[in-house]
Amino acid sequence: MINIIMHGCGGKMGQVVAEIVANDANCQIVAGIDPRVPEADFPVFPTPADCNIEADVIIDFSTAVAVPALLEFAKAKKIPVVACTTALSDETMELLKETSKSVAVLKSANMSIGINLLIGLVQKAAKALYDANFDIEIVEKHHNQKIDAPSGTAMALADAINEAMEQQFHYVYDRSQTNEKRDRKEIGIHAVRGGNIVGDHDVIFAGRDEVIELTHKATSREVFAVGAVKAAKFLASQCPGLYSMKDVLA
Amino acid sequence: MINIIMHGCGGKMGQVVAEIVANDANCQIVAGIDPRVPEADFPVFPTPADCNIEADVIIDFSTAVAVPALLEFAKAKKIPVVACTTALSDETMELLKETSKSVAVLKSANMSIGINLLIGLVQKAAKALYDANFDIEIVEKHHNQKIDAPSGTAMALADAINEAMEQQFHYVYDRSQTNEKRDRKEIGIHAVRGGNIVGDHDVIFAGRDEVIELTHKATSREVFAVGAVKAAKFLASQCPGLYSMKDVLA
Amino acid sequence: MINIIMHGCGGKMGQVVAEIVANDANCQIVAGIDPRVPEADFPVFPTPADCNIEADVIIDFSTAVAVPALLEFAKAKKIPVVACTTALSDETMELLKETSKSVAVLKSANMSIGINLLIGLVQKAAKALYDANFDIEIVEKHHNQKIDAPSGTAMALADAINEAMEQQFHYVYDRSQTNEKRDRKEIGIHAVRGGNIVGDHDVIFAGRDEVIELTHKATSREVFAVGAVKAAKFLASQCPGLYSMKDVLA
Amino acid sequence: MINIIMHGCGGKMGQVVAEIVANDANCQIVAGIDPRVPEADFPVFPTPADCNIEADVIIDFSTAVAVPALLEFAKAKKIPVVACTTALSDETMELLKETSKSVAVLKSANMSIGINLLIGLVQKAAKALYDANFDIEIVEKHHNQKIDAPSGTAMALADAINEAMEQQFHYVYDRSQTNEKRDRKEIGIHAVRGGNIVGDHDVIFAGRDEVIELTHKATSREVFAVGAVKAAKFLASQCPGLYSMKDVLA
Repeated sequence: MINIIMHGCGGKMGQVVAEIVANDANCQIVAGIDPRVPEADFPVFPTPADCNIEADVIIDFSTAVAVPALLEFAKAKKIPVVACTTALSDETMELLKETSKSVAVLKSANMSIGINLLIGLVQKAAKALYDANFDIEIVEKHHNQKIDAPSGTAMALADAINEAMEQQFHYVYDRSQTNEKRDRKEIGIHAVRGGNIVGDHDVIFAGRDEVIELTHKATSREVFAVGAVKAAKFLASQCPGLYSMKDVLA
Repeated sequence: MINIIMHGCGGKMGQVVAEIVANDANCQIVAGIDPRVPEADFPVFPTPADCNIEADVIIDFSTAVAVPALLEFAKAKKIPVVACTTALSDETMELLKETSKSVAVLKSANMSIGINLLIGLVQKAAKALYDANFDIEIVEKHHNQKIDAPSGTAMALADAINEAMEQQFHYVYDRSQTNEKRDRKEIGIHAVRGGNIVGDHDVIFAGRDEVIELTHKATSREVFAVGAVKAAKFLASQCPGLYSMKDVLA
Repeated sequence: MINIIMHGCGGKMGQVVAEIVANDANCQIVAGIDPRVPEADFPVFPTPADCNIEADVIIDFSTAVAVPALLEFAKAKKIPVVACTTALSDETMELLKETSKSVAVLKSANMSIGINLLIGLVQKAAKALYDANFDIEIVEKHHNQKIDAPSGTAMALADAINEAMEQQFHYVYDRSQTNEKRDRKEIGIHAVRGGNIVGDHDVIFAGRDEVIELTHKATSREVFAVGAVKAAKFLASQCPGLYSMKDVLA
Repeated sequence: MINIIMHGCGGKMGQVVAEIVANDANCQIVAGIDPRVPEADFPVFPTPADCNIEADVIIDFSTAVAVPALLEFAKAKKIPVVACTTALSDETMELLKETSKSVAVLKSANMSIGINLLIGLVQKAAKALYDANFDIEIVEKHHNQKIDAPSGTAMALADAINEAMEQQFHYVYDRSQTNEKRDRKEIGIHAVRGGNIVGDHDVIFAGRDEVIELTHKATSREVFAVGAVKAAKFLASQCPGLYSMKDVLA
């Protein structure tokens, strides 16, 4: 049984984590930390300093300003931390690296199990299919309120392919202005926008008479909570160091 | 039983038409016309002038220069013509319209049954979904040797939607250069290129918590032959006039 | 401006309707009816009898037992009703038909705009493609807690095709036990189950070298609320009679 | 430059191999073997015994009865063999294993690069996603003349998952006869049949709020020729032993 401290247990993601853990026979939340001190099935403390409960791992879905105090707590108590809070300052990122010398710390751009798995699969596919002249294209779909395009995850997928293939590829976002055959060294990246689509990513490998598509569709941001629980179960038994979701899925 | 004259019976598309008709109990080829005079299960004549066989309809898959003589023949014999040869000159197009005053003539940009059906369906969908704020996007996929982008068929689909919706929409081919929310009045059109994909077209209607996709995938140019046979069976009994695949599918 | 009374405004679907209407410049909720009398941006009454507000149309997402009193109210006040509550008794269904002689009443098996549109599109496609020997298959996907298979909507799609095609088709759910070629007169219906998929329906028309797919994906039950608002705007100006979503989308 | 002997150069697959090799700067066909002795851009011999050309590797797309003589030739000349001919007898399979003690021999159930890659990817995905309670389903689509269902490749995909997951799963082909929730230990396998679809395989991993799909679509049997050339380039430099496409893609 893995004992978890939930930092940010009063927030939306914290509540989802609690619900997921409640349905998992192999772990349990033994304490929560949140300045709102919400009611819960476990003791809740307003700050890390107040928390006197032993645990195997901490999951953090809080706010950027709350993270430094948590890292100090984790370091002092020697409890590994799955750090899911986004938009951390450079100082906090430095502190996080520093903390990882004393305890295991996990940080990833995207906590979704599916996306992190997909990143590994597209790298494997890109390598296997390259000699057979497969062309690579990415189509992502998001809601009509999204301002940036292509999505950060689409770029991360393209970058991961490039990393696996010695940076051979350049990216193309528009073919309507040129009248040229496709260059083998391009990855076309297409940003579809519409409705309230949470996030679809489709990586297409098109070869001679065969096409492989590796696709991820998310229907809720809750996928990050699922990933965090999986990461926590992994991290509880790890040596000090800085980990990412890639390690969890290895 | 509908009796068909196959003009261009020695070409690839002519042969495919013959094969399709041979498996159709409701029609038969009673004569072929082709200067190569290939062997066939029906009499073949080198030119229309040589052909003395009665028929209900002509299917034409020949070359642009051969079409005027065929149209004269059709007009003289009062036999409807399914005109599938592409890249006709302006003069031949005029002659085709003139001929249609005497006999039924059918001409479409794309002879595929599926694409012509899809055009009608997307118009119906666009009208039905507009009030509910669905966003429309088109993704097309073609082989890596294709020079133009987006495909003519993708543009035809977008234009058909616009025609049905009082020309409200403008087209967007690239979102990477702007940081703006999607405008309701845009149709995003995306050209994926890779491998030897014959032609996929996907029209996406994305609304609140639901997405409708209407998709066509072609795996061979033979789909045009299938459409031609269907058109021939329709046209055999029509009055003089100029028809399109839209009439066949009405 | 269309004025709406929301019957069942305290329920989940009622709240979603209120949110959708709040973002629609062409309609507004002028009153709610709900025994829980929740707080709202409009006056709320515990029963229809208490409601003295004029309106153009009523949307009903309540419980089966509450519907008869609402229908009496609608008939007396001559206000059209969009009846979305499911599992109505035979008596209530009779009362609903009776009421429709005095005011417009709308009732459909599925309030989703997308599914109702899809039903019309697959009928049109089935007719257009039949002569060209397209085979029809349906794949539906739902969450792993769903007990019935195939889904009611998949069956409704198949039945709609059959209705349009003179009941020619029979349904096949399993091909693993026979070693036979596909019969032209069958519709294969496949029930995929996994995760928490809300509901995907894919109708496949496979022909010679081309495939058309008409697909609907729902990511939330809220799609029924969207459909209800669209129906309300339609129904407000209709003569007495019994309507369905098909009329809304005509 | 890798020098290839094409065994069965007069057959359809042999011709496709020749065309693929002609467009590959890293290999060339230096001789063909075929009793029909077709015209070609390289010398062609009627039997292996007649062939006096040195080479780095042999590709075999011939007939089952022609394979034993080829294997003897390969063993005597110490030339690796990519054995693509199907339906080999048990005796020939024994001979093939025996031959692999002297030279490298490659044999796989399916020569497509894409399918062999997919097998590896679904195993990796199954392992990574299992703890997070993803459900696995397979949908395959083939033409309406196919007699067996599900396809051998669909079963190979399911078996590969089971092999990676300690044989935990059983297979379900029909859910219409039971009214039960999905069992976590089942893999649903669905056989769609229609038109002339060459072969689509879709492996679905459905979890909480996210779905991953790994898909392969073939549009021609020529994909086997592409795989054979890739295998030949790999095998030319291998030590004696029995190899499969899995080794090529490692």
